[in-house]
Order: sequence, then structure tokens, then C-alpha cells
Amino acid sequence: MERIRIGIIGAGRIGRLHAENLTYYIPEATVVAIADVAPQAAEECAHDLEIPRAFEGPTPIFEDRNVEAVLICSSTDTHASLIEQAAEAGKHIFCEKPIALDIPAIDRSLAAVERAGVLLQIGFNRRFDPNFRRAHELVAAGKIGKPHVLRITSRDPEPPPLEYVKVSGGLFLDMMIHDFDMARYLMADEVEEVYAAGAVLVDPRIGDLGDVDTAAVTLRFRSGAIGVIDNSRRAIYGYDQRAEVFGEKGTITVSNPKSNTAVLSDSSGDSGPPLYHFFTDRYTEAYIAEMAAFIGSIKGGKTPPVTGRDGKIPVVMGYAAKRSYEEHRPVRLTEIDPGLAL
Amino acid sequence: MERIRIGIIGAGRIGRLHAENLTYYIPEATVVAIADVAPQAAEECAHDLEIPRAFEGPTPIFEDRNVEAVLICSSTDTHASLIEQAAEAGKHIFCEKPIALDIPAIDRSLAAVERAGVLLQIGFNRRFDPNFRRAHELVAAGKIGKPHVLRITSRDPEPPPLEYVKVSGGLFLDMMIHDFDMARYLMADEVEEVYAAGAVLVDPRIGDLGDVDTAAVTLRFRSGAIGVIDNSRRAIYGYDQRAEVFGEKGTITVSNPKSNTAVLSDSSGDSGPPLYHFFTDRYTEAYIAEMAAFIGSIKGGKTPPVTGRDGKIPVVMGYAAKRSYEEHRPVRLTEIDPGLAL
Amino acid sequence: MERIRIGIIGAGRIGRLHAENLTYYIPEATVVAIADVAPQAAEECAHDLEIPRAFEGPTPIFEDRNVEAVLICSSTDTHASLIEQAAEAGKHIFCEKPIALDIPAIDRSLAAVERAGVLLQIGFNRRFDPNFRRAHELVAAGKIGKPHVLRITSRDPEPPPLEYVKVSGGLFLDMMIHDFDMARYLMADEVEEVYAAGAVLVDPRIGDLGDVDTAAVTLRFRSGAIGVIDNSRRAIYGYDQRAEVFGEKGTITVSNPKSNTAVLSDSSGDSGPPLYHFFTDRYTEAYIAEMAAFIGSIKGGKTPPVTGRDGKIPVVMGYAAKRSYEEHRPVRLTEIDPGLAL
Amino acid sequence: MERIRIGIIGAGRIGRLHAENLTYYIPEATVVAIADVAPQAAEECAHDLEIPRAFEGPTPIFEDRNVEAVLICSSTDTHASLIEQAAEAGKHIFCEKPIALDIPAIDRSLAAVERAGVLLQIGFNRRFDPNFRRAHELVAAGKIGKPHVLRITSRDPEPPPLEYVKVSGGLFLDMMIHDFDMARYLMADEVEEVYAAGAVLVDPRIGDLGDVDTAAVTLRFRSGAIGVIDNSRRAIYGYDQRAEVFGEKGTITVSNPKSNTAVLSDSSGDSGPPLYHFFTDRYTEAYIAEMAAFIGSIKGGKTPPVTGRDGKIPVVMGYAAKRSYEEHRPVRLTEIDPGLAL
Repeated sequence: MERIRIGIIGAGRIGRLHAENLTYYIPEATVVAIADVAPQAAEECAHDLEIPRAFEGPTPIFEDRNVEAVLICSSTDTHASLIEQAAEAGKHIFCEKPIALDIPAIDRSLAAVERAGVLLQIGFNRRFDPNFRRAHELVAAGKIGKPHVLRITSRDPEPPPLEYVKVSGGLFLDMMIHDFDMARYLMADEVEEVYAAGAVLVDPRIGDLGDVDTAAVTLRFRSGAIGVIDNSRRAIYGYDQRAEVFGEKGTITVSNPKSNTAVLSDSSGDSGPPLYHFFTDRYTEAYIAEMAAFIGSIKGGKTPPVTGRDGKIPVVMGYAAKRSYEEHRPVRLTEIDPGLAL
Repeated sequence: MERIRIGIIGAGRIGRLHAENLTYYIPEATVVAIADVAPQAAEECAHDLEIPRAFEGPTPIFEDRNVEAVLICSSTDTHASLIEQAAEAGKHIFCEKPIALDIPAIDRSLAAVERAGVLLQIGFNRRFDPNFRRAHELVAAGKIGKPHVLRITSRDPEPPPLEYVKVSGGLFLDMMIHDFDMARYLMADEVEEVYAAGAVLVDPRIGDLGDVDTAAVTLRFRSGAIGVIDNSRRAIYGYDQRAEVFGEKGTITVSNPKSNTAVLSDSSGDSGPPLYHFFTDRYTEAYIAEMAAFIGSIKGGKTPPVTGRDGKIPVVMGYAAKRSYEEHRPVRLTEIDPGLAL
Repeated sequence: MERIRIGIIGAGRIGRLHAENLTYYIPEATVVAIADVAPQAAEECAHDLEIPRAFEGPTPIFEDRNVEAVLICSSTDTHASLIEQAAEAGKHIFCEKPIALDIPAIDRSLAAVERAGVLLQIGFNRRFDPNFRRAHELVAAGKIGKPHVLRITSRDPEPPPLEYVKVSGGLFLDMMIHDFDMARYLMADEVEEVYAAGAVLVDPRIGDLGDVDTAAVTLRFRSGAIGVIDNSRRAIYGYDQRAEVFGEKGTITVSNPKSNTAVLSDSSGDSGPPLYHFFTDRYTEAYIAEMAAFIGSIKGGKTPPVTGRDGKIPVVMGYAAKRSYEEHRPVRLTEIDPGLAL
Repeated sequence: MERIRIGIIGAGRIGRLHAENLTYYIPEATVVAIADVAPQAAEECAHDLEIPRAFEGPTPIFEDRNVEAVLICSSTDTHASLIEQAAEAGKHIFCEKPIALDIPAIDRSLAAVERAGVLLQIGFNRRFDPNFRRAHELVAAGKIGKPHVLRITSRDPEPPPLEYVKVSGGLFLDMMIHDFDMARYLMADEVEEVYAAGAVLVDPRIGDLGDVDTAAVTLRFRSGAIGVIDNSRRAIYGYDQRAEVFGEKGTITVSNPKSNTAVLSDSSGDSGPPLYHFFTDRYTEAYIAEMAAFIGSIKGGKTPPVTGRDGKIPVVMGYAAKRSYEEHRPVRLTEIDPGLAL
């Protein structure tokens, strides 16, 4: 079996997670190099996982003719430029979300990918979660007929560090972006307009930075269907991710998976296991399936399941939601990116 | 035990339901008269339930000094006027929702009640459902701290007859009005602004009448909390009423009760009992508890648990939602009723 | 509507419960007399429920030609004799379980019923629980094909008073008797042999009285199917009654109903409502349906759903289980009552 | 990191499963050789997983001084002898259950392990299932106080091939053996006596071979607690494994995990995902955790979590259950193995 040779750019939490998953769970791939602006992080990861080479910058990876594909796991502001470089070097690309917070930059990077003819997959890992995937399949199989209403709830156990809030683009662009993607995935439909309500209820310092920590967004789909997404930066009971698609023939609900099925009933009532508290625990299977899908696309020479366009539209939706919140009115996606009208 | 003597105005489905509940389940009350514009309906009900007297119009009930309280279960357009007459006759009043679709008429009837010093309870039966009530109690007991997000889903098994849609005021005023009341009940907070999205996805004839059959409304509470309500006129799987209140210390979810706990697992998977299909089955206990609360308020001489103001505000919310939908923008409740600003 | 006139013998907890249910929930019946060895209890109940007459002994009830049916709710040792007297007086009979702890006495009373041609229903209330009834219906409808394995768990919140343990016949005859009836009801099959394991784990004083407080009994059905029943006198978390019927085409599980569906999720996990703690709460609906079935049988002139034979066999099973426990070996029911071999 | 070098004897389904798990999920170990009586099976597995060497017989593995531990995954009749040989060669041993169907042979192999001072772990994989493990931990933490009643249900989707039934020792020794181990694991107690009821309800050919396909066994624990286990060879709805431990302070139930949380509600009711149909799907995590525990025991030089004694006692229990079924009476374990009295 010829293994796909992978280079990883970024040895932080998510880069290392992908490196581990490729090493242990994806026999069809092998990680041959890893780079990080903090060379120690790259070296440590290379040592632990027996990756042959570690670098400070991405250039040696792009120049290595044996590397067939790269994973871009560096900070968001570097994604678009690295996609362009990787495409020019003829590498297939897996890039963490979001591609960029700057829409023209996204367009430039997607154009580079197009020109180079390489494959690009964006890291919306939740599509690979077996629970959401099952809902997607049931909708796609027509089990509920035409979808009418989508509901998504998404809550994090803790707000991110304030330093991150400053540069992340805010809740609509760094957190709800996952739900915007999920909305498109579950409904197999495009959103035309959003209306966002937001509030600062968790931590006033988040408000001081101009962001919100609690929000509800109404989506208007092309088909006429309606969606509602609610987000909170802090759910004390754990990492909470649920969805429902309601349609003419029924409804599909996806609840939170638990770590085990043991329930204790005592004098204070029933108590089951708590929710997962870390996204890496909640989405363990999803992250592996995501890598398997990327490697499978390369081996099969077929379009990856999360395309560049899938990476762009949620950013547009995030900006539309942000503007809706700021201007206190519904906002059409074409106001943000007139090109979407096509 | 001295029983509270009740006269019922309206012997249709809901009037008869209350008559049965008072007769069989509320020993502290006795139904002494029933009236209906269709005298046969009143007589039939009187015969079946051994109610001593049946009338065509309400006047004899108002004039009967032995009648202490009346239930107004006639068509909506008669409610406000009957409340005024009953108040002037010195009767305590239970009135089905809504008080009226005309806000000045509501105000006039509430003023008459105020002048007469009688008790008035409005028929928001869902507050008496043990499931929603438990959620209300847990929120009130501070179990989730300060509420941040409210979610309500409410779907009927079938759209009402088109004749009813014509006069009902539409989805926001005849169906979502229950959810507007539930929002105030669960959150113990007032709504300041709403944003409504609506669609015609179930039956185009509903759209031809200027109404919607599918809707999602965002609520902005005084406290800063956010709510989302979604409604559909047709859920093929039954009468679906759920809610969630999420707050700083946890979340409370209320799911649909089922008629039994037997689950069959066979080669096609697990299957439990379907949802209830009729609101009278879903809210059997609630309707009894509602009457018990009304009779208890009279006996104790205390304010009923659902006041005239509780009857008015959801109508204002319904108009605000309707305007929001029509004008495609968020609408403050004070635009509909400036008096609410106080 | 002509109401069935009922006399009640015994105004203790269960007699009063039936009196209330007949008064409030069964319009087809009316309680015309109540008797109790403690005349005050009968009078109090008569006063509260507006029952016309109260007596110290049952004779006036038997002599009253207007009384069509009696409920025997007195202490167990009086049941068989009262059944005989009631039958001779031509009254239809509802008798609480067990008919007697003496099998010849049971046989004599059933013979008297047979001779008199009156209807007799035994008070196995759990057959009328909507959860167990649904399981029974699904089995009867062939949904799981031929039944292979039955499992019943039945646990009380607290042991009964020691005074009661002394005279009750012990766990196998006063507690598990309900499960023996349930086994026959769910399986629509007869048990041929039992094997009982017992232990004293809850309260040593129960052991001092020669009884057990924890037990598991294996049932061998005529069809070859196998059943297991486990009992405990004390489940700290509430009144726990579950069952499962497994067969060639699937399995049906019945879990405990809860008082509401509200679930709180907080930092200590999920917690739903506790189980009911009193059998009258757990079986509220069942007790009403039981009375409705009795009255319906009288009105329709048809065999009641729980016959005298249904009342006798669980007593035989109780004695067989007791002997099995004492002699540490499987015991056939025909060892206790050779007549069952027919 | 120095990896533990493993040789695997047996390249059938379970041997290959362990080989894959060690290769992909256990970085601390490396498979260096695999042997099978069918040399092609060994070679194919070696090729697919890049295992350096493949053999027809186990001898080269025992002779290889670099091999530190062996997995015995061959047919049951070879286990005891291979354990002796491996122990004499100084290898640590993981052996699939059962050690043998012959108790003196078990004793001889355990004595050999004792003499050699090597570590031995028996393959009761279900102990490593996160659901059952959580129940074990809750019991061990005293959450339910002293255990009173244990219930285990264990059903396979399909009977094994009749050829296997002939040599497997029968249901009590090849299927219920897992539940006997689970009983000891969950209760942290020893069983003194069993009573077995059995039936042939699934396939008469199983009965023709002298075996049963449906059974319920009552366990009497040293502490006085009681257990009931029910087994069926065919559950049409999937692989069904549940347990409950009830005690003085509460109860712990373990239900079946599902592959996802998506539930479809439509006009025919609710339907969730079916149970797993293969033990390798149901126990995916457990098999990996089992290997991790074995490797961890070797690295830490500590007693493995499932000892030789843990491997022997369920075999004794299986023989006791078989004798109980055949002789139709309760059987003490010391009747089978007097040495257990110590």
C-alpha cells in the first residue's frame, strides 16, 4: 500500500491532533514533516510521533516533492496565504476553518486552488460527527420530506481567552461559523438572509471588546425554510451541541452523545454522565473521519466533502450576522458578498 | 363544604370540557347553569352532566344572584363584552384566551374588572401543565441562576379549518399567543422587542388568506435575555410542545410527555408510543389544574395565577410579531401599545 | 343514565380510594353505602364524599336490595367469607387481593360465586396501568412473536410495618403476588414451576419474623418460556416497577413513568424527576381504570377482566415460591394445588 | 520509547482484531510475529499490518528472545497447553477466554504461570467497556452502598454455527461465561451457588445437540446478595447487553450504547438507531482498552486487571450452571471445584 505523504503546518493543539490521528488511525497516510513558528513544538511533536522531519517554517514542506498534501493548522491570519503557496507548489490542501476573515483574501486563495487543480478540504469537523451525519443522511434520504424548520443549539463550556476574542472576529465568526456550516449541511440549502440578536450575559469584558457572548440568529433559506441558531459562550454543564430538522413528514433530533450509559438512581433522583467538556472528546470520532475523508478524496481523486466554497459561505454568513446585530435589521448575504447572487 | 356555583357561557368543545372537569374533578365547585347561542348544545351538555339549567343567552346567568363565577367559553369576538357584563354583575370571571383581538376593547374590559373588584383568570392552560410548571418552578427556585436563552417549539398536528384562519387573527395571534404567554411564565421577565420570520410551507391556501403556517420569532427580554419560538401548523407526528430555559448555572429542558412507557425493539429499531394528537389529551391534567386554581383563588380571595394583564400582553406580542413579519424588521411592544412602557 | 349502586365494605386507605374514584371519575356508578369495623372511618368517608349511608358492619349493605355490587376492601382474613355472603346476597363483587391466604377458603368462595352467578373481579390494579397494559397489548398483537423470556422488577420504597409482615403471609404472598399476576397477564401463559431465592438484606427484624426482604424467583411457563422476578422491600429512590417481555421477533420494555418531563442539567450532570414514592400516585390512572372496568363489566353483563381464577393462581404461586425458598429446590404449582393440573 | 514486543498465536477474527488494535492504537507495543495453523492467514495478517514475521506454529515465537509477551488467540482446546509453554519460555501472556473447558488443565496452566512468575491476563473484554466499567466504579465508590440484587441481560443477534455449539461447552460455558465474569466484576463478590433454568426456544437443532438456547440463572453471592442472568442466542433487534446493580442506597443501570443519537419522529412514532449487531462494533473501545491494560501491566510490572483466577472461576460457574440445569436443583460451586472453599 502506497501511503499518502503529508506535511503539517502548525504543531499546536489542532495540528498535533491531526498528526496523531493520521499516525494511529489512518494507515493510508503517513506524516513526513511538520513545521511550526515555534520550532520546539514541531520538534516535540515529531519526536513523539516519529515524524522524520521538523521545521520552523513551511517552505521546506512546500519544496519537498515527496509531500503530496499539506494540512494548514497555523493561526487564522496565515491560512489564505499558505493556501496560495501550497496550491502553487501543487500540494493538496486541508485547511482549518476559517479560510480567512477577509473575503477578498478567501477569493484569491480559492482562485489559486482552482488554477492549480489541487484538492482543498476545509476543517468543518462537525460534518463528520456520526450523530449529525446520520441526521444529514436521513434528511437527504427524504425521511422528513421537504425541510421546514431547522434548530441548532451550540454552547461552549467556557469562553475563550480574551486575547483570542480580540482577534477571532467575534462570536458570529469564530463560534457560530460552525453552526452556519451545519445549517447548510443539514438542510442541503442556501441561506439568503439572517437576523441576529446578541447579548452580553456571561462576561462583561467580552462586551467591552465589542463582542457578544450569547446570540440567536434566524436564517431564511432559499427554499423558504426557516432556521434558528442559538449560541452561548458558557454552558456550565458541558459542551452542548444539538440540532433538529423538522419537515413535512417528520422531525429528526440529534442530542448530545454521552461518554457512557450508566445511570445512578438514588434518593436525589436519576443522574447520568455529564456532557463532554472538551471539543476534542466530543468530536474524537469526527476528527478521525475528517482525516479519513481527506485522504480518501486524494486517493480517489475526487472532490473533498467540504469544499472551498463551503469554507467561504459561513464567513459571509458570519459577517451578515454581525452586521445584522450592529444595524439591528435583517441582512441579506448578498449585501456582504454580491457574488453570491449568482 | 359550600361549593362555588358556576355558570358557563359557551357549550362548545372547550366549554363542555370545563363543565366536565368541574363536575367530575373539582368537588369545591358545582356548575349550576350553561348557556350557548345554540340552545341544543347547552341543553345536551346540561343533560349529560346533570347541570340544572340551560339557556340560549348569558343574561339569565348574569342575573342569577346564586351564580358566583362565570366561565366565558364563547367565540373570541364576544369575550370582551361578556367580561364587562359579568364584572358589572359582580361575578368572578374565567375567560378563555384571547380576551379580544382589539386592544382598546381589552383595556375596557380590564378596567371594568378593576372597577367591579371581581377576580379574572385568563385561560392560558399550558401554565398548569406539570411539565412546564416544573420548569417554571426550577427557574423560580434559582436552579439555573439568571436565565440567558429561552427556546420554545410548538407544533400542531393539523392546521385549523380555513374558516377559522380567516377570523383567528392568524398564527401569531391564535397559535403563538400560547408561546408568548409561556415565555413570560418561564422567564418571569417581560419582552421588549420581537422579530418574526414566517413562511407558507404547509398549505398555500393559508398564504392566500394572508397568514403564515410556519414561523420563528426572536424575543428580546428586559433582562437582556434572548428567546426563540418556532411554530408549525402541521407536525405529522403529533402535538409537539417543548421548551428549554438556559441560564448561568444550567439548563432545563421540557420534552413531550407520552401516553405510556412501553417501547418495542424489533428488527426495525426501537419504537415508543407516538405523541398525543389532541390538545385535550396532551393537557388533560392542565385543564383540571387550571379550574382547580380558579376555584381555589375564589375560595381564598386571592389574585388568580393568570391575570388580565397576563391576558393582554401576549395579544400585544402577537400584533408586534405580525407587524415585524409584515414590515420585515424588529418591532418593540411599545409601538403596539405605548402604555406598556410604564 | 341509570347508575350502578355500589356498597363499599372497608373505609381504610384502599376503600376510600375506590370511593373517591367512583364518586369523581366514574359517572356510571354511585356509592350508596359504606361500612367499616371502625364506624368513625365509614362516617367520615360518607360525609366527605356525600355517600348517603354509613354502617359498622356489612350486613345492611348485603340486605339492601338497591345495592347491585359491593367492593370488599376490608382486611385480608375477611375477604373469603365476605365474598361468600355477598354472592349469596346476589351482589356483584369487586374484592381486593388476595382473596385469602387459605386455598380451600378461596375455592369455597369461588364456588359460592359460581353458584350465585354473580360477577367477581379481583383487585390486581397493575393490569390497568397504561404502561403494562400497552405491553400486554403488544404481546397479544403478536408484535414479538412467541415470548421467550419475561423479566419483572418490583421494589417498594419502604418495608411495611413489622405488624403487617407478621400477618401478610410474607413477601412472596403479599408483595410478589402482584408480579405473579403480572407474569400471567403479560405472557398470557401459565406457570408450572418456580424456584425462589431469598435474603434478608434490608432489615434483620424481617428475618426474625421468618420472612425475607429481597428475593428473586425463576418461573417456568407451560410454553417453555422462562421468567425472572426480583423484589426488594426498600428502594431508596422510589416505587420501582418495570417489566420486559422478550420474544422471537423483538422485546418490549416498560419503564417507570415519571411525574413530569423537566430535566435539569447543571455542573453535577443531568437530573430528572424522581420516581413516585407511593403506589397511589404511581397507579392513579390504573385504579380509576380498574373501577371503570368493573362497572363496565356489570353494565355489559360480561366476565370481568380479572377473574376469581386470576385471584387464586397467584396465591398458589406465592405458596410454591415460599416452599421453594424454604426447601431450597424448584417447586411445581401442582404440589401446592393438585387441582391446577387439569 | 521502548515498545513491548508482542507475538500473536492465532490469526483468526480475534487474533487479527488484537493485531490491528496493537498496531494502530497502542503506541507502547509492537507486533513482531504472528502464527497460525493456517499459514496463509498468518501471512495475510502480517502483510496487511506490516508485522515482520509470520509462522505456522508458535514455537519460533516462544524461542524468540526478543518477544516479551504473547497473545493466545487460537482455538480453546489449545489455550492451556500454550499458556504452559509460554510461561516456560518466560513470556507474559494474554489469553482469550476460556482458559480451558477442563478444570485440572486450567489449574496446571495457572500453576505454570505461577512458577514462571510471568503476568497473565484473561480476555474478558467486557470489563473494559466504558459503560460497565462506570457501573463497576460507582459500585466500588459506594454510591449504592451494599449491593443487594444484580441483574444481567445478555443476548446475541444470532446463534453460533451448530459446529461451534458442538465443541463450545454449551451456552453456560461459552456465552454466559461472560456474564459470570461480569457478575463478579460488578459485585466485587464471589458466587457460592447457582440455579439454572434453560429452554430450547430458538432452534430445535441446538436442543438436539444437548444444549439450550435460552436460559436464566440465579446467583447466590457470599454476601447474601442475589443475582439473575438471562441469556438468549437470538435477539432479532441486535446485540443486547445490559446490567443493573441495586443496593441499599440506590441502583445503577447500564443500557445499550447506540451508534448515534439521531431520532426520527414521524407518523409511525419515534425511531432511534438500532443496537449494534456485532460484538466487535459493540466493544470496539473495550478491545482497545483491554490491550492497553495488558501492555500497561507489563510496563508497570503489576498484576493484570483480569487474572488467571478470574479466568478459572467463570468456568467453574458454567459447569455448576450446567449441572444445575441437568439435575434440576441448585448447585454449589464447591461441588464442581472443592478447592474454591478456601
